[in-house]
Amino acid sequence: MKLTVNKDFLNESIQHVAKAISSRTTLPILSGIKLDASFSGLTLTASDTDISIQSFIPMEQEGKEIIRLTQKGSVVLPAKFFMEMIRKLPSDHIEIEVSQQFQTVIRAGSSEIQMVGLDPEEYPLLPEIEEDKTVTVASDLLKTMIRQTAFAVSATEATPVLTGVQWILNNDTLKLIGCDRHRLAQRHTPMEADENAQFSNVVISGRTLNELSKILPDGNTLVDMVVSDNQVLFRMERILFYSRILEGTYPDTSKLIPKSFQTQMVVRTRELMDAIDRAYLLSREERSNIVRMAMIDHETIEVSSSSTELGKVTETLVVSGLEGELLKISFNSKYMLDALKVVDSDKVRIGFTGSMSPIIIQPEDGTPILQLILPYRTTN
Amino acid sequence: MKLTVNKDFLNESIQHVAKAISSRTTLPILSGIKLDASFSGLTLTASDTDISIQSFIPMEQEGKEIIRLTQKGSVVLPAKFFMEMIRKLPSDHIEIEVSQQFQTVIRAGSSEIQMVGLDPEEYPLLPEIEEDKTVTVASDLLKTMIRQTAFAVSATEATPVLTGVQWILNNDTLKLIGCDRHRLAQRHTPMEADENAQFSNVVISGRTLNELSKILPDGNTLVDMVVSDNQVLFRMERILFYSRILEGTYPDTSKLIPKSFQTQMVVRTRELMDAIDRAYLLSREERSNIVRMAMIDHETIEVSSSSTELGKVTETLVVSGLEGELLKISFNSKYMLDALKVVDSDKVRIGFTGSMSPIIIQPEDGTPILQLILPYRTTN
Repeated sequence: MKLTVNKDFLNESIQHVAKAISSRTTLPILSGIKLDASFSGLTLTASDTDISIQSFIPMEQEGKEIIRLTQKGSVVLPAKFFMEMIRKLPSDHIEIEVSQQFQTVIRAGSSEIQMVGLDPEEYPLLPEIEEDKTVTVASDLLKTMIRQTAFAVSATEATPVLTGVQWILNNDTLKLIGCDRHRLAQRHTPMEADENAQFSNVVISGRTLNELSKILPDGNTLVDMVVSDNQVLFRMERILFYSRILEGTYPDTSKLIPKSFQTQMVVRTRELMDAIDRAYLLSREERSNIVRMAMIDHETIEVSSSSTELGKVTETLVVSGLEGELLKISFNSKYMLDALKVVDSDKVRIGFTGSMSPIIIQPEDGTPILQLILPYRTTN
Repeated sequence: MKLTVNKDFLNESIQHVAKAISSRTTLPILSGIKLDASFSGLTLTASDTDISIQSFIPMEQEGKEIIRLTQKGSVVLPAKFFMEMIRKLPSDHIEIEVSQQFQTVIRAGSSEIQMVGLDPEEYPLLPEIEEDKTVTVASDLLKTMIRQTAFAVSATEATPVLTGVQWILNNDTLKLIGCDRHRLAQRHTPMEADENAQFSNVVISGRTLNELSKILPDGNTLVDMVVSDNQVLFRMERILFYSRILEGTYPDTSKLIPKSFQTQMVVRTRELMDAIDRAYLLSREERSNIVRMAMIDHETIEVSSSSTELGKVTETLVVSGLEGELLKISFNSKYMLDALKVVDSDKVRIGFTGSMSPIIIQPEDGTPILQLILPYRTTN
C-alpha cells in the first residue's frame, strides 16, 4: 500500500472512526485503525465489537484530488498514536507507505514517522446486515430525538436492557423511549413505514447513541437506519455506523403514563429551570437533590429546598392555567432539570395525579415529547 | 448589617477572594467569606492562612450607586454556597440582611435564601505589614514574569523552598527565578530601588503566584509589592493579596548558568516546538519523554524519538548561525516544550557546553529571559 492523502480528509475520517476505539479492549488488534486503500478510495475502520465505524475517503471531490494512489493494500495502525500524529503533522499532504511486515512510513513536510503496523487479515469482519428493514430519517431530527431520550437511560448495568433506548416503528410513527426506575423520556415523530419494515424491540445503548450523535451531520441530510436481528446500521453519506442491539425485552412503559390529570399548569421553562437550579445548589449539599414544589394559589407556586447546616432557598413563580387541586410534591431536582433542558419550548405544561404519582412534563408548543418523573416520597 | 448591592460587583469580588478558599481547611470558619459593610463600602475577605485576599466594593462608581447601605455590620457566609448562589440569582440588585445569631437572608427578584452565617469575631486577623520595602510594577509585566518562571518550580514538597519562585530586587533589577532539580527559568526587568527597599530571599509559592496571576488586572495598571519579614502583599486598586514567604534559603543558582558556550544556534521557536511535540507523542508512550537532538551539519538538525513497540519519529529542521562543535544531546521533551512556550519570541538562541552540560534557551529578541534544562544522560 502506498498513497498520498489530503490531511484534512484523513483527519476527519480518523476522528469519526476513533469513536469506536475503546481504551480497554481485550483484542489487541482492536486498539488499531484499519486502512484499506483501493482504486475507489481509502476506507478506515475501527471497532470495539459493540460499535463498529467505517469511514470512506473518495479519490477526488468536486474535481479536486484528495488521494493519489500508487499501490493498493491494507494495514492496521495503532489508533491513538496515528490519530494524534496525523493531527499534528505540518503538511497538507500525507504520504503513507506500507512495506515488509506491515512496517509503515508516514511522511509529511520534514517529518518522517515509522510505525509498527499489524496484519489486516487478523482484523475482525464487520457484521453483515440484510436490507429488509430500513427507515430513513433527517440527521437533525435523529440527533434531536436522541438528545431528548438517551439522557434518561439507566446508568447502571443491573438491568442491561434499561441502559438502552427503545426504538419502535409502527405504520405511522417512529418512537424513542429511554427510562430508568425513576424517570422516562419519550419522543415520537410521524413516519410512514410498510408492514415489513416495522419493528418494536430494537434497543440501542444510550452511550452508543451519544457517540452516533457526535458523528451525525448537521442539517437535514438523510440517514438510513437498517435493522437486522441483532445489529443496526446507521448509513450516512461516507460513514457506516454499526451497533449491537441490546438483548432482553424492553418493559411495556405505556402503562406508566397517566391518561388524565388531577392538576395541570403551564409555566415558563427558563424561569422554572433557574428556580430549581438555585434550590438544587442547596439540596446537592444534602446529597439528596430533593426539591419541594407547593402550589400556593391558582397563580403562584413555590419551589424550595432546605438544609439544616446551610439554610433554605425559597423561589416564588407565577404560573398560568393552573387547573385542579392545589398540590405539594417533592422530586429529584436533577431529574427535573434534565427533563426541562431537552423540552426546547418556552413554556411547558406539567400534569400531576397526586403527590405520590408520576409528574408529566410536555412542551406547550405541541412537539410530541413526554417526560415523566416519579415524585420523591416525603413525610411533610 | 443590611444593604443592597449590585450583582456584578458582588460577583466579581467573590470570584477574586474565592481563590484563597481551600477545600481542605482545618479551621471551619475559613471555609467562609467574611463580609464587612461600612459607610465607605463592602469588604470581602477570604483566607487559607497561606494566602489571604481582600476585595473592596465602593458605595458608588462614576456617580452610579453600587451599594445602598441601611445598616453596617459583618458576617461570615459559607463560601461555596454563597458564591454559586450569587452567580445564579435572577436580579441585578441583591439584598443582604443579617439578623439574630448571624442568620442571613438574601433576596433577589422572587428568590429568598436563608443562610446560616458565622460570627465574624472568630475570623482570623489579616497579617500586619510594615511599609518599609515597596516596589511598584506594571500588572502586565508582573503577569508575564510569573508565567515565565512559576512553571519551573518543583512540584514535590521534598525541598519546600524549591516549590517557590525567588524574587530579588537590587539597585537596578527585579529578578524572578524558578527551578527544580532538572531545569531553571529566570526573568529580570530593569527596576530602580533605593538601598532600603532591596531584598533577595523572598520566595513565594508557585501555586500562590498562579492564583495571583488570575487576579492581576490586564493592562499596565500599577501594582505595589510590599515585602515584610515573612509576608508579602500585592496591592491592586481594590484588592489586597497577602502571601506567606516560604521559609528556608533559596540555593545560589547563578553558578549553574554557563558563561560561555561550546556550540550555539538560532532556530524558529514554532518549528522547533512542533517538531518536539511530535517526537513527544512517541516518547510519552515510553513514559520517558526523552527526545534526541543531533546536529547533522551547520545548517541542519534532527529531532527524534523512538519506541520499540510503536516505531520512530524523525524531524529535520533548518537552523541558522550554528557555531562550534556538532553535538548530539538528549533531553526531556516536556521541559523543552515548557521553556519554549514562555519565550514569546519568533526565534530562540540555544547554547550548549557539551552533551552532559546544561542547555540554555534565550529569546533572540533580547528580552532578558533565560531557560536552562539539564540534558538526559544516554549511552548513545
